[in-house]
Amino acid sequence: MYKFSLKTNEQGLYDITKLVRQAVYDSGRREGLCVVYCPHTTAAITINENADMTVREDIAYGLEKAFPNRAEFNHLEGNSDAHIKSSVLGVSQTLIIDKGELVLGTWQSIFFAEFDPPRNRFFYVKII
Amino acid sequence: MYKFSLKTNEQGLYDITKLVRQAVYDSGRREGLCVVYCPHTTAAITINENADMTVREDIAYGLEKAFPNRAEFNHLEGNSDAHIKSSVLGVSQTLIIDKGELVLGTWQSIFFAEFDPPRNRFFYVKII
Amino acid sequence: MYKFSLKTNEQGLYDITKLVRQAVYDSGRREGLCVVYCPHTTAAITINENADMTVREDIAYGLEKAFPNRAEFNHLEGNSDAHIKSSVLGVSQTLIIDKGELVLGTWQSIFFAEFDPPRNRFFYVKII
Repeated sequence: MYKFSLKTNEQGLYDITKLVRQAVYDSGRREGLCVVYCPHTTAAITINENADMTVREDIAYGLEKAFPNRAEFNHLEGNSDAHIKSSVLGVSQTLIIDKGELVLGTWQSIFFAEFDPPRNRFFYVKII
Repeated sequence: MYKFSLKTNEQGLYDITKLVRQAVYDSGRREGLCVVYCPHTTAAITINENADMTVREDIAYGLEKAFPNRAEFNHLEGNSDAHIKSSVLGVSQTLIIDKGELVLGTWQSIFFAEFDPPRNRFFYVKII
Repeated sequence: MYKFSLKTNEQGLYDITKLVRQAVYDSGRREGLCVVYCPHTTAAITINENADMTVREDIAYGLEKAFPNRAEFNHLEGNSDAHIKSSVLGVSQTLIIDKGELVLGTWQSIFFAEFDPPRNRFFYVKII
């Protein structure tokens, strides 16, 4: 199991593809699965477009509109919206390894999604 | 494959972490993956905060606000909102097993999310 | 790794269960995991009800209401709503194989979810 750290200053999607790909190379696996796991409850892992930076900004904005912080929430920390977004995107993503490479579409990257910044975060990569 | 049952009376998140952890111990696996799978279409599996009970209540409330039951829905059973929430949270979660233990963050638990109660439900755990 | 193609003309959920099941049979695996992976950023893989066609229409409609195309979006292609839905449903689903069969609930099917039609799409199935 590989462990990686990142520091987040703002809400949004942080590209972690290079780190995950490096773990796949280090493992020497030619065929298998790669699980990327976020151990936090106000962040997530997601896969989406890497080419145009506005896509990830629009994703964060669209999620904020769908899951705003509501006055009726009871959680005293005041970050229930971040908890909801974490469950909606999910904390675990499973990727395929084929011929020694992570299988990703042309426009896909893997992102760590931060919904309650700033934080010192980490994530795990497991290859089987 | 392990099979577990639960009875749900209300909409919301039911903590199933102990059952999943027991399956991991029973398997004797030291390294691998653990898949938790919900075979229902109006329920889901999600991972989120276990410490403050209000978090899971706020999650259920926030999902209800984002995905209400709409008059325009055509499904005659009247539970299309529950079907949507099932797809949004997802019916399958993949966790990592490291050194014989389920890898979970400090505040994470695994939940069975019920969106169409009351029901007799079950879920599967597969360890590889 | 198996690769399948489909052509989408409309937004919505396309049933791909037969194709995934065929891959499981072809693999000859009796026990394991089956990962269904979508390499696109405006589509997704989801598991939901197969019996009543109105369910999948209501799912598409409910997602459209929660994640509409917003005037404030900056992505020039104008399909940020489709990118959001892709991340919300997720591009990867992990299923269990038990006794040579894909484990699915009575009412469950596996769907390719198209949010930006028409397109020539494909998806991967990996069995371990």
